[in-house]
Formats: sequence, structure tokens, C-alpha cells
Amino acid sequence: MKALVLRSAGELAVADVDTPEPRRDEVLVRVRHSGICGTDLKIFTGAVPVAYPLIMGHEMAGDVVSGGDGLVTPGQRVLIDPVLFCGACVECRSGLTNLCASGGIIGREVNGGFADFVTAPRTHVHALPESIDTRSAPLIQVLTTCLHAQRRASVGAGQSVAIVGLGVSGQLHAQLARARGATMVIGVSRSAWKRQVAERLGAQVTSSSGDAAVAAVKDATGGQGADVVIECTGHMKALADAIAMVRPGGTIVLFGIYTDREAALPFYQLYFKEPTIVSARAAKGEDFPESIGLVARGAVSLSPLITHTVPVTGLREALAMLEDDVDGRMKIILEH
Amino acid sequence: MKALVLRSAGELAVADVDTPEPRRDEVLVRVRHSGICGTDLKIFTGAVPVAYPLIMGHEMAGDVVSGGDGLVTPGQRVLIDPVLFCGACVECRSGLTNLCASGGIIGREVNGGFADFVTAPRTHVHALPESIDTRSAPLIQVLTTCLHAQRRASVGAGQSVAIVGLGVSGQLHAQLARARGATMVIGVSRSAWKRQVAERLGAQVTSSSGDAAVAAVKDATGGQGADVVIECTGHMKALADAIAMVRPGGTIVLFGIYTDREAALPFYQLYFKEPTIVSARAAKGEDFPESIGLVARGAVSLSPLITHTVPVTGLREALAMLEDDVDGRMKIILEH
Amino acid sequence: MKALVLRSAGELAVADVDTPEPRRDEVLVRVRHSGICGTDLKIFTGAVPVAYPLIMGHEMAGDVVSGGDGLVTPGQRVLIDPVLFCGACVECRSGLTNLCASGGIIGREVNGGFADFVTAPRTHVHALPESIDTRSAPLIQVLTTCLHAQRRASVGAGQSVAIVGLGVSGQLHAQLARARGATMVIGVSRSAWKRQVAERLGAQVTSSSGDAAVAAVKDATGGQGADVVIECTGHMKALADAIAMVRPGGTIVLFGIYTDREAALPFYQLYFKEPTIVSARAAKGEDFPESIGLVARGAVSLSPLITHTVPVTGLREALAMLEDDVDGRMKIILEH
Amino acid sequence: MKALVLRSAGELAVADVDTPEPRRDEVLVRVRHSGICGTDLKIFTGAVPVAYPLIMGHEMAGDVVSGGDGLVTPGQRVLIDPVLFCGACVECRSGLTNLCASGGIIGREVNGGFADFVTAPRTHVHALPESIDTRSAPLIQVLTTCLHAQRRASVGAGQSVAIVGLGVSGQLHAQLARARGATMVIGVSRSAWKRQVAERLGAQVTSSSGDAAVAAVKDATGGQGADVVIECTGHMKALADAIAMVRPGGTIVLFGIYTDREAALPFYQLYFKEPTIVSARAAKGEDFPESIGLVARGAVSLSPLITHTVPVTGLREALAMLEDDVDGRMKIILEH
Repeated sequence: MKALVLRSAGELAVADVDTPEPRRDEVLVRVRHSGICGTDLKIFTGAVPVAYPLIMGHEMAGDVVSGGDGLVTPGQRVLIDPVLFCGACVECRSGLTNLCASGGIIGREVNGGFADFVTAPRTHVHALPESIDTRSAPLIQVLTTCLHAQRRASVGAGQSVAIVGLGVSGQLHAQLARARGATMVIGVSRSAWKRQVAERLGAQVTSSSGDAAVAAVKDATGGQGADVVIECTGHMKALADAIAMVRPGGTIVLFGIYTDREAALPFYQLYFKEPTIVSARAAKGEDFPESIGLVARGAVSLSPLITHTVPVTGLREALAMLEDDVDGRMKIILEH
Repeated sequence: MKALVLRSAGELAVADVDTPEPRRDEVLVRVRHSGICGTDLKIFTGAVPVAYPLIMGHEMAGDVVSGGDGLVTPGQRVLIDPVLFCGACVECRSGLTNLCASGGIIGREVNGGFADFVTAPRTHVHALPESIDTRSAPLIQVLTTCLHAQRRASVGAGQSVAIVGLGVSGQLHAQLARARGATMVIGVSRSAWKRQVAERLGAQVTSSSGDAAVAAVKDATGGQGADVVIECTGHMKALADAIAMVRPGGTIVLFGIYTDREAALPFYQLYFKEPTIVSARAAKGEDFPESIGLVARGAVSLSPLITHTVPVTGLREALAMLEDDVDGRMKIILEH
Repeated sequence: MKALVLRSAGELAVADVDTPEPRRDEVLVRVRHSGICGTDLKIFTGAVPVAYPLIMGHEMAGDVVSGGDGLVTPGQRVLIDPVLFCGACVECRSGLTNLCASGGIIGREVNGGFADFVTAPRTHVHALPESIDTRSAPLIQVLTTCLHAQRRASVGAGQSVAIVGLGVSGQLHAQLARARGATMVIGVSRSAWKRQVAERLGAQVTSSSGDAAVAAVKDATGGQGADVVIECTGHMKALADAIAMVRPGGTIVLFGIYTDREAALPFYQLYFKEPTIVSARAAKGEDFPESIGLVARGAVSLSPLITHTVPVTGLREALAMLEDDVDGRMKIILEH
Repeated sequence: MKALVLRSAGELAVADVDTPEPRRDEVLVRVRHSGICGTDLKIFTGAVPVAYPLIMGHEMAGDVVSGGDGLVTPGQRVLIDPVLFCGACVECRSGLTNLCASGGIIGREVNGGFADFVTAPRTHVHALPESIDTRSAPLIQVLTTCLHAQRRASVGAGQSVAIVGLGVSGQLHAQLARARGATMVIGVSRSAWKRQVAERLGAQVTSSSGDAAVAAVKDATGGQGADVVIECTGHMKALADAIAMVRPGGTIVLFGIYTDREAALPFYQLYFKEPTIVSARAAKGEDFPESIGLVARGAVSLSPLITHTVPVTGLREALAMLEDDVDGRMKIILEH
């Protein structure tokens, strides 16, 4: 089959490789569409170390070729859950499959979806309903990570939720919070374009970042602060704003990935406001059916977030676009 | 009555003042013993601003003089809950009475226990059983704040709990964790003397601080890290250690009060390990009966922590001792 | 003032009585509208024993006359929380104010709202926003009991919820479940009229009762059963249906009040399906602001449920109507 | 190999059968000891229908022969988790593996441990530490079901727990509740002998059943009732007692299996006391490491519960003994 093979950091090329052989309990899938995200970029540049050669790609949808034992059937359109786990360690046994130390991600620890075919354990292959096409489905993988985070934060009925950062994840978080019964969703971004997208998708209030955002959140919550603040940027300054935005006894979600090692933060407020801070890594199997359901019933819209669809052979150019955050560009989907 | 009146920062003197008049729903208590803590020192120096003149003192036990409406009766020995709240705000209605913005602390916002008499709402006066004397009882107020924190962190059966900092709070946390069913309690302190106290009171393992502590926790938990780490020092370096000590998916309790505004912390680990971080401020009414019960049945020992008992008129000297952390000194109790 | 005084079981008359004197921390309210419910009927007939004479009425809204200390101001339109509690017992301290053994209900243990004026603790008087009139407000008291129940059952995002019994409570439960993010609400009633009301208010599916209802719930949930079943009828047969309707690992809410002492129930299913069963009694203070908010933002509609508005002097006739469940009759509101 | 084969209801004989072939991801175990329980008896009599021929036995420990992929190694002493699940259904994905509709029990849906050898998935084979012999280990399977139930009921620090029925499960529940930090454990049984065993193993109070038990629980809890009541008998009369014993807002655990279809129960109390009722079926994978740990550190004692050890060929006689509940007889272990 054809695949985009990463031979070393920065060295990516189309190659002919063996089609993977599904083992017992595995499914072989013909990939139709895949998504790219910041992690792919970091793997490409070498910032995230991997074993070469590697076929990247962890957001992917396609058609079942073989396998599935009745769970899915050949020809069926499916989405793949890329989070592998061992099932036997302390984390797995206590339900923290996303933290399994022996696990990995399809497309990072094992070959992934930037290829004609990919294999996955049968438990990791989810049937797509009629209403969801394979072009939008890769975004559902991103949605599962948002759902996992909102579950950890118990986002729910009647809450006010501030989202700091309105990229793909922030836009999904905003819609998801609404679907979970949040009654006030405030989106924060420097980009007027992203704020407009968030407003169209359900944020009642939006604001530019920094002090303006803190004021907007206070204003929208009767002076109290948001029940939940979801920090999606990974910037320490935004985290400081998040601490200022949360209500006493509220919850802060660390959804961005923080690479800084030093930060100025209002640490005293962590005592005074008594917040709960949760981080969130990847997702669990249970997040897939629910995320698919959210999209199927229209509670979360994916297509407004897909701004570019390019052939899979354009992966390298697509990765370059990720580095450059411009208005009008959000999710890039690869067509196989 | 006689009282120790703080007329301005640093200006503390014995004075004759009017005995407080209990209002309806209040109880008048003859104070017998009181405790001092770091907050008293900060009020004394002016670091925590208050309205002068003020009678400080928020850890106090004594005998009921009048009031109580059947909840307590004159002559009964009681402990006072100093955390006042309004009962009507959003926080109070949702059970977060410790975060009430209109509330306060007896001995900080209103006159407290460094006096012959003090008043408190009847709901804030807790009868002491036979087995608990008024000399150890002020420490139960400290225990309530530990209990509140361990509840927030769901410390419970079968867990491993690391306590960083083995002052009064740390020693109480260690005993409390054991009482709640924790099966591995690891105490961390630079002081060999404090480690010995912790070992006598139930810590299975102790260690000096820094990398040694991280290694000791890993070692005591099969390489995994502690289910819960309770950071009691308020130092950022110790918080960095706490992040290194916690197991994937574990919980970090911010029990120290952080006054730094900048810190070097392994922020990436907050993503990778997916911990939950909870802070804890003061305590709730429910924490008093349970804390009294823990002491009454011997699950938590207080007297080993009381190293000095001095007359209440020696308050100023006692506060000076607090500034100077030496071996052999832990809790100072004032005798009235 | 004028009041409807119950002098003994069944003996109800308009009488001139002293206007109540608000104590410190109490508010005096001019009642404008009140609601009646099954409990009033039971008090009237003597089935629920009370101390005579009594002014009944626990669902009531009106204008503040005096008191409130800044929480509410004279002239303000308010709803009264009737659930009194002591604040000092084990239940109150642990947040179970609705279960306080020394507490009571305004209109049952102390004089209530079927009068010109009523008093209530300032913490029990809730300001109504512009958009809610005093005529619908008494229904919010009923909504608080539904909210309390749905909180106990953790009704939330993405769930399927079956409501057995579509009287006032059932109709509120259906709307509330939708507002909390439930994605499939199934209403069950023998009355076609009630089913129509439920469909207009947001139930996606409705069914007649018995085996048809079990089949309808299975059908609407992919064969699995409902995540939550809320039994509102108080009939044992309906509870048996609820057990048959719930999915494995789901939750059954006992919202009806069961007066039977014997029942045929599929007890083995309680093992096999491993459900959680929660009952719910009254409500807590925190349920009032949230319920008012739900109505204010239109998430729950009350006026479609008010089928009759009668003068307060018609209380006796209104109680008689309660005994007779006919189509077209749901909530009766008294106008003062 | 030799195995005890059930050819039809009541027809049980030693037979030569093929040693099972472990598949990939399975482990072959030489069984050393197994336990019998009420379910085995029901399978034997045909009350629980199975597909014949069947080798029963779901409580079993032995030595690894082959398989394990590093999780366990040949020669290692292990305990087997008999609860099989598919990993892909709604229940499995949301962590309810014990409720998997496509799952089963080793020894009921597939061949079990009353044989020389048995196979199990590698994730279902748990290494035993030095301190636990294979003779007591089968009881740990029973302990996992108790742990699962106490987790569902959140049994924890400072609670009062009443155990109704002091057979093997009740004795394990009593010890487990103590280990989880319960401060008052009350054991209820008609048998003075069983009450003595419970007292030796940690119950602070014991009582005969019925009204005496209700009074004893009230007495031991300051008049309030127990925080948690665990009903282990499966008798409706005992469940009625459990409802009378629980405190307002407490939890009742349905641990017995109820075969009645009609019952006289104080249903009104389910409203008035607002209890939470949880049932519990089987156990989850996470319950095994924790149960093994509880026994390894001596928090739960198993050997006092093993009153008889017989050769595996005596299975039929051992099953007969189960039907006849006499003093001095508790757990029967089969030696292979």
C-alpha cells in the first residue's frame, strides 16, 4: 500500500509498504479521511521523539476491510480510537486506560492513519451512523479528548463555563459545554474571527484575552466568576487569567499542554478561592460512543471547523500550515 | 473582663474591656485554653490586615456561661468553630460555607479568644466529651482544616498518602490519613525530630525532603507514586516535589499557603500525569463533630504535639517563638 | 389579617387572626399567590397529623413588607422556601438540611401561606426576577423538589430519562431532565392529554403505562433501558415497571410517596441489573436559586401547567378538585 | 486431565477430559485449591441453568503452567478472576464490566476450576504474594464481591456499618468495613457462634436479628441509625430490618440475592429517610489487586473462615453441606 513514512525527524515521503496484517481481535480499515494536529507537527519536527520509521496519524476514519467479529462488519464506515492500553496494569484496572504506562497512541507508538490501510483492536473501532461522513469523523477523536476533560471537571447543568483559546479544541469545548447543559458559555480569544465562529456555534459571550476576558467573565456571571474555566492555549499568562476568572470553589481545566518550566501565577488565589484543578490527557473508550452520539444528534457541529481539505499527499504542506495561525484557518482534513 | 487587645500592628496589650453580650442565638463562653498559629502572627505583624482594635484568637475552648438553647448547657466544656458565614449567598447555599464572601473568622473579623470571654453563634459551639480536655481541644480546630482538605481529596481506604512538611498540620494529616484507612503514609521533613514524631504517630515511612523524598515515595509505592500528596509547607520547591511524587491520576493537596508569585514547576507533568489538584481553605461545620470524634476514640493524638503551655499573658513571647522553627517545638497552648 | 384556618381535620374557615410579627432574621411577606398540592389535602383530611389551629400553605409568593437585611427589600417580589431546619444537628451539619429531625415545613409545622401575610427566615426568601410573576412562582417550589431528586440521581448530559407519571411533578421532571442535557426523555402516563402536554414541553417519546411503557423505553434506548427512571406515581405497579425499564447499572428515583406496605416487585432484577435506587424528600436551599434561574431563562415552562386560578377563599373547593384526577386539570393556583 | 464434570442437573462425576488449550492472551493454570459457594449449589441442582457438560468452579487458585506474557510467569502462584467481559459493549466501555451482557463467569458460562487445569485471560490472572497460600486465596474472590459492593456504597472513614447476616460474606464485609475506616461495625445474626466469630474479627457490637438488631444498631449509633446497612441474607424480613436500621440519608446495600417476588416492606420510610439503595453484582478487575493487598497486609483474615478442607473429589458431599447451615461450618475449600 501507499503510506506517508517518517524516516527521521523532518524526513517524510510517500512510500510503498506492506499492508498491515490484522491479528486476531484486530480490524483492518481502509482509511478515507484523517486529521492532523499539533502532536503530528511535534512528531514530524522531532520535538516528540518516536521510533523510526513511523506512519503518523491518530485521527482517522474509513471503511472496514476485515475483522471485527460482529462488532463491525466489512464495508462499514468507522472511526478509530487511537489510545492503546494493556488492560492489566494498576491504571487500566482502575479505569485510567488513558494513563496506561505500557500503552501508546496509534500513529505515535505504532503505525497510524496516514496510509491506505491501518489496523486497530476491534474494541477500538467504532461504527459511524449514516449522518456522519468520514470527512468530519476525524474531528470526533478531538471531541473525545474534550469530553474526557469535561467529564473530569463535571461540566454540567446550569453551569457557567469560560473557554480560553478558541482553536479547534476550544470550539468543540464551547459546543460540548452547551450540550451538557451549561447555561453560560464565554469564549476567549484574541482573534475576532474565532470569536465569531464561537458565537455562531453557541457561545453566548465572547471576549478578547487578558484583563478584558477576566472582566467579561465576571460580568457574565453576576460578578462571581465562572464555575469552570477550560484553559486551551497552553500559555502561562492564559492560566493566570483562568485563575482570576474562576469562581470561589470552581474548577480549572488544564487542557493546554504546558511546556514552560517557570511561571508567574497568582498562587495565593489557589488557597483563597479553593478551586479544583484538573488536567486531562487523551480519552477513554467510553468517550467514543458518546462523542459520536453528540455529533449524530447535532449537538456538536464539526463541518464549520473544517476550513481546508487536502489530498493526503499534501501532508507536509498541511503541517506547515499548522505552524502559522491565521484567521480563516482551523481544521485541516486529509483526503485519502 | 481582661483581654489581649491588638491596637495596631505590633501593639498588643492586656486591657480591661467590656465582656461581650451574647445576642439571641449566641453563646457566651469562658475561655480556658487557646492556641496560636501562623495566621495570628501575620495579624500581629500587620501582614494580614484587620480592623483595630481586635482581640485575636481563633482556636479556643472553654466553659459555657450562658446561651445555647439546649444544644449546649451552662458549665459544659466546649470547642468553638471560628468560621462565620452568612447562610444566604451562593456559596453558603451550595454548602461552601468556608468560602462565604460575607463571612469571617472569630479572632480576625470579630473579637476572638485571647480574652476571658468570647461569644459565638450557638451552631458554632461544640460540646467536648469527657475524654478531651480544654488544653488539647484548640488543636481540634486545626484538625478540622485537615479533615476538610482530606475530604476534598477523597483520602480513603487503601491509599498511599505522602505528607510534605511535618509541622502541626502535617502531623495531624498523617494521623488522619491512617484513620481514614490509608495503608501507606509517608512523612517528609528536613527535621529528624519531626520525622521521629511522625513515625511515633503512625507514618510508616519518613524521609528528608527534595529528591530523597521523591525516591522514598516511589520506593514505598512500588515505583508508582503516592495516590495523594499533601503539601503543607507553602514552598514552591516542595510543590515541585509533590508533583514528582504523585502517581498518574493521583491527587495533590495544596494545604500550604503560597505567597510566591513566580515558580519553577514541572508544568508538563500536570498534563502527563493527569493529577487532580485541590486546595483547601478553613473548614465547614460538619468537620467539627467528626474531628472531635476522631480525637475522642483515640484515632488522632493531640497531646504529643503540644510542646509548650504558657499563660495567655505571654502571648507576645509565644508569637515570637512561632517565627523561630526549632526542634522540640511544635504547638504552643495559652492557659487562661 | 384574613387567613384560612384549619381548626381540626376537615374544619377549614376564613378567620381574622393576628398578623405574624417577624423576629430578627425573619421577613414579613404579603402573599399574592399560593399553590396547593397533595400534602395540603392530606393535612386537611387529617391523614397527615398536625397541631391545630394551623394555617396551611407551603407554595407561596408575594411582596416583601419588612425585614431582609439587604438580602431582599420591601416591595420586592419573592418566593418562599418552606423547608425549615435547625442548622446544628448531624443532618444539617452534613448538608442534609431537608432531613433535619428538628425542622419542619412552613404550612405544616408552623403557619403558612393561605393567609394575607406569612413570615419566613431571611435565608428562606428568594427574590423573583422581572420575568417571573407571583402566579407561576409557587410552582417553583415543586420544581425545587424535582431538582433535588435529579441531583440525587445525577441526571445529566447524554442520558435517557423515563418519567413514570405525568402530573405536575412529572411534567416538571421531563423539562428539567432536558435542561440538564438528557438527550432522550420518555414520558409515561395513562392519560393521552397528559402525554400531549409532555410532548409539547419536550418529551421526545411518550407511552401509556404498563408493558407498553417498558417496551417504549426499550425501543427508545436501543434495547438497553433508560439511564434513569423517575417514578412519580407512588404506585407499586409503576415501581415494578420502573425496575423493568431501567438499564443495567442505571438509577431509579422514588419520587412518588409509597403508602403501601406490601408489594410484588421483581426483586431479583435489583441484583441482576445492579441499579442504584434513590428517594428524594423536599429540597435544599441551594435548589431555589437554580430553579428560579431555570424558569427565568425559559428552560422550564410553568404556565402550561396552571390550568386553574381561583380566589384563596375557594381553597376548600380547590382541595376537592385535587381528589379527582381529570383531563384538563393540572395545577391549581390560589389568588390572594 | 481429571475434572468434575456436570453432565446434567444433579449428575456430577469425575471424568478424564482434554486439558484446555490456552489461546493467545490466555494463561493455563494448575488448580491447587478451589472454593464452593451457593451459586455452585444452584448450578448443581439446576436452579441456575447452564449448558452441559460443564466444569463448575469460579473461586480458584493455583500455579501458572504457561502463558502470561510477562504479567505472570510459569510456576507463579495465582488467583483467577472469573468475571469475563467483552470490552466493547456500552457497559464495558463505561467501566461496568461486571454487567457485560456478552460476558460470563468461568465455571458457569465456560469451564471452571473443579479440575486439574483451567485457562483464563492473562488480564484475569493475579499473582499471589508470599504471604497468601492457595488454600485461602479462593476466598479472595468472595472478598472482591464485597469490595465492589462497599465501593458502590462508598463505605469509608468514620462511618457506622451494620452487617445483616454473618456467613462468609458478612464476616468479610465486617472486616472490610473496618479496614476502610468505619468506626462502628455492628454484626447481626441469629447464630451466637457466628456473632462470636464476627466479634473476634472486628465487629464492635453484635446482635441477634429482628427488632433486637434494630434496637442494637440505634443504640450503637446514638439513636440515629447506621450510615450503611449491608443486607447479606437475601431475606425480605431482613431487608425490612435494614430499612429500619439505616440513618436518614444513609445507604442500604442489597448484597443478598432476592428470589421472592412479593414482600412486606416499610416503603414509606424509603421516602421519609431518603436512603440510597445500591445492589452489587460480581466484581471488577480493579477489585482483585486491592483485595489481595488487604489480605496480604492482614487487614482481612481469611483462615478463621475456612472451617473445612476436603479433597476435590468430595465436591458432591461438600455441596450437600452447604444446604445445611450449622454452627461451626463456614467456608469449605477443595484441595486438588
